[in-house]
Amino acid sequence: MKVEGRNAVLELLKTEKTVDKILMQRGAEKSAGRIFAMAREKNIRVQFADGRALDRESETGRHQGVIAFVSDYEYADLSDLLAKKEGARFVIVCDGVEDVHNLGSILRVAECAGADGVIIPKNKSAQVTGAVVRISEGAAEHLKVARVPGVNYAVDKLKENGYWVYGLEADGEDIYSCDLRGDIALVVGGEDSGISALTRKKCDKIVSLPLCGQVNSLNASVALGIAAYEALRQRR
Amino acid sequence: MKVEGRNAVLELLKTEKTVDKILMQRGAEKSAGRIFAMAREKNIRVQFADGRALDRESETGRHQGVIAFVSDYEYADLSDLLAKKEGARFVIVCDGVEDVHNLGSILRVAECAGADGVIIPKNKSAQVTGAVVRISEGAAEHLKVARVPGVNYAVDKLKENGYWVYGLEADGEDIYSCDLRGDIALVVGGEDSGISALTRKKCDKIVSLPLCGQVNSLNASVALGIAAYEALRQRR
Repeated sequence: MKVEGRNAVLELLKTEKTVDKILMQRGAEKSAGRIFAMAREKNIRVQFADGRALDRESETGRHQGVIAFVSDYEYADLSDLLAKKEGARFVIVCDGVEDVHNLGSILRVAECAGADGVIIPKNKSAQVTGAVVRISEGAAEHLKVARVPGVNYAVDKLKENGYWVYGLEADGEDIYSCDLRGDIALVVGGEDSGISALTRKKCDKIVSLPLCGQVNSLNASVALGIAAYEALRQRR
Repeated sequence: MKVEGRNAVLELLKTEKTVDKILMQRGAEKSAGRIFAMAREKNIRVQFADGRALDRESETGRHQGVIAFVSDYEYADLSDLLAKKEGARFVIVCDGVEDVHNLGSILRVAECAGADGVIIPKNKSAQVTGAVVRISEGAAEHLKVARVPGVNYAVDKLKENGYWVYGLEADGEDIYSCDLRGDIALVVGGEDSGISALTRKKCDKIVSLPLCGQVNSLNASVALGIAAYEALRQRR
């Protein structure tokens, strides 16, 4: 997997993950000095090349002069993600989020809002590729992402483990009258399809954001951001 | 100006704005039946063409078989936007938001959160183009957007008119301990530069979202969404 762009590579270097090498644009060792220094410190090979060579290697087209080569993204074990820990648990479940920008943005929001991790299904979902890591600004490197055979399986496991599962959709209870403390999971649906019918049924409650305008729909990652921060507000 | 995509055109047709004509892909009159019916009802000319003709006309590359031609976006007067009204006033100010996706997303959030309108500067800022209208899913058509010579001018006017002006940045007071009721303006900065130094000084207060992770930055429109909804929560 390739991790591209300065912020994403910098966040990658802060983790314990094995970086095979870093490809750096000639002359960038000064402007990307922090990356260069950290790579040196961690004994990671830095290979220099011209801009066109980086353009060729780039999967996102936005490498900013730095591409790191790492083993494929290491997903977390679901059981590990759901394990008891000190304090209340908080996970986010993506049900059919197929847009890589939305998934990257959801991972970024999840990390900022202090979620323990994110669960995605193996099918009908964007996976954690280099592009997603880049869009997440490196948040994917600090967050546990567990991949499951299906969202319903994950919801069953969450409930077995004592989580209260909230689905975020348009026609539920006002989120500001819901108690989002304790062990909770927030389920967010895909851009067009929303949460699937069976998953909806399995949720303990459907919660909604108030919508004051005429357009009445928020982008999936913005809606999740608002809901996750309302959870954070209540939980502090 | 061109408005493209089904949702954006549908929202446009719900307004009183003058639509010169609608270009529709041959065969789309059924799947886009609601648009076709509304155009008929409003006596708007619908011209049919093949997909390639729409591709050529499209500015966003995502027309979904429908492009509406309208006069240029009609910005609101600042004085009109700031005029006294029943209930508390709430406006959003963009300081150097140059990315069209972020501006479109901010307009969408503003409309959903019940803001009266959005203020943007004439320079160093994305303007309300057809692409922005599309990204806003039509919210731009329902919202007042005022264009000002500069953000500092707008902040001065806001304060003269009795608004309390909050800047949204990383190193301010925790937003959850701030009173966001009454007449307020939320200033959101550009992707890279944030709020300019002088504008920061002019703000009555700098407010921040708590950040629990290691990445510690949210996308501008997600951050604004969370802040605007916290205002909404307090104001209801």
